Amino acid sequence: MNRLAIFGLAGIGEVGAGDSLGKLIVDACSRNGVVLEPDDVIVIAQKIVSKSEGRLIRLDGVVVSDYARELGRELDKDPALVELILSESQRIVRRGGRAMIVETHHGFVCANAGVDCSNVGLGKAALLPKDPDKSARKIRAEIQGLVGASPAIIISDSFGRAWRLGTIDLAVGVAGFKPIKDERGTKDFYGYELRAAVTAIADEIASAAELVMRKKEAMPVVVVRGCEIEKGEGSVKDLLRPEAEDLFR
Amino acid sequence: MNRLAIFGLAGIGEVGAGDSLGKLIVDACSRNGVVLEPDDVIVIAQKIVSKSEGRLIRLDGVVVSDYARELGRELDKDPALVELILSESQRIVRRGGRAMIVETHHGFVCANAGVDCSNVGLGKAALLPKDPDKSARKIRAEIQGLVGASPAIIISDSFGRAWRLGTIDLAVGVAGFKPIKDERGTKDFYGYELRAAVTAIADEIASAAELVMRKKEAMPVVVVRGCEIEKGEGSVKDLLRPEAEDLFR
Repeated sequence: MNRLAIFGLAGIGEVGAGDSLGKLIVDACSRNGVVLEPDDVIVIAQKIVSKSEGRLIRLDGVVVSDYARELGRELDKDPALVELILSESQRIVRRGGRAMIVETHHGFVCANAGVDCSNVGLGKAALLPKDPDKSARKIRAEIQGLVGASPAIIISDSFGRAWRLGTIDLAVGVAGFKPIKDERGTKDFYGYELRAAVTAIADEIASAAELVMRKKEAMPVVVVRGCEIEKGEGSVKDLLRPEAEDLFR
Repeated sequence: MNRLAIFGLAGIGEVGAGDSLGKLIVDACSRNGVVLEPDDVIVIAQKIVSKSEGRLIRLDGVVVSDYARELGRELDKDPALVELILSESQRIVRRGGRAMIVETHHGFVCANAGVDCSNVGLGKAALLPKDPDKSARKIRAEIQGLVGASPAIIISDSFGRAWRLGTIDLAVGVAGFKPIKDERGTKDFYGYELRAAVTAIADEIASAAELVMRKKEAMPVVVVRGCEIEKGEGSVKDLLRPEAEDLFR
């Protein structure tokens, strides 16, 4: 039977700047009696990666520009937060209501450049990791160094959508596998050649993991077991639509 | 331990117009030794729902308008397919390259109005169900009538994204639960009041199920067990952003 198991690692606890997430994950696996398997995907909430990398900023320490102050008034947002969002962005794609949709330096088109004040402590904001693929590779190498296993890694974050309500989790960084499955050119059961069969596996896995992360006990690290992934080098950039093909930027 | 299990129901087989999907699902459960649990979510690929509802169209029988012919030339698409897409749409949102992004009569903003030639037989196209929530409610009622269980139902389809490559599966119809989880106003661990905490649970579940549907043996029906869903009336319309709040239409 085709089957997937998704489970959280209890007891990761509070993460601080400088902590080795690889070690925290290996310890949590051992406490939870989890032996990592070769095709496991470990999904890690962006927030703890940002914490481990010291990407938490005190809002009252932010120097606010006139432009950020003006935008803050327009969008009814804390000007210090707006300043952080601008510093994380290459451009504003749209603004309206209280929303500020930007393109981040990584190339993500998203609300608020992923800057977020939840689950980090009052008066603080978390920025996305500077290079989330690199963060994912580092965690993978730490796990490999400690237990020999080399699971695929996804760093996930919540994204809103242009035409649908509610957020879903997507990948912001990956390591150890191809985040896209391209099946164009293969034929279906009837002999029809598939022309649009490209699936964002990593995003689907991130969404699946969120369903476990959200449960009662906070679970920032989740193991997804049973996916058919293609191991190898991969980058979250494989998931980003080139600007030339973009009809909505 | 927070845990989710996702498994496909083997042996659904070819679906034809008039087939009761509820009965096919109940039979497949019994063959697979699956006893449905109260919080199970059954995710059903749109394609078999469309087949059961006779929503397959022979392309060579489509009367093609001049406008569809012209668009077909512009977009390098079969004009009969373009005609079907137009008939399923309230408007074209964007076009460019070979892409035609429309708003369907249901209110979905998506490529090709969900009209798709894969997995339906050569020379044919499948249209989305006319009222996918109604389809989901019907299947749920059939299952309830046969075995007493009343699982939540999601009808899923693949969607492209404006700024990311690859498709992910999302809900196009739901029954028996709330597709959105709104946690705004609750406080995080540090006492910060969450202001943007609205999650599209149904879309995340659809994406999770796709990871199982895609495996070797085609699995158009997947059971997701262990989600924390809120039972009750729900509609896919709860997942659609109202036009007044749309920055990209």
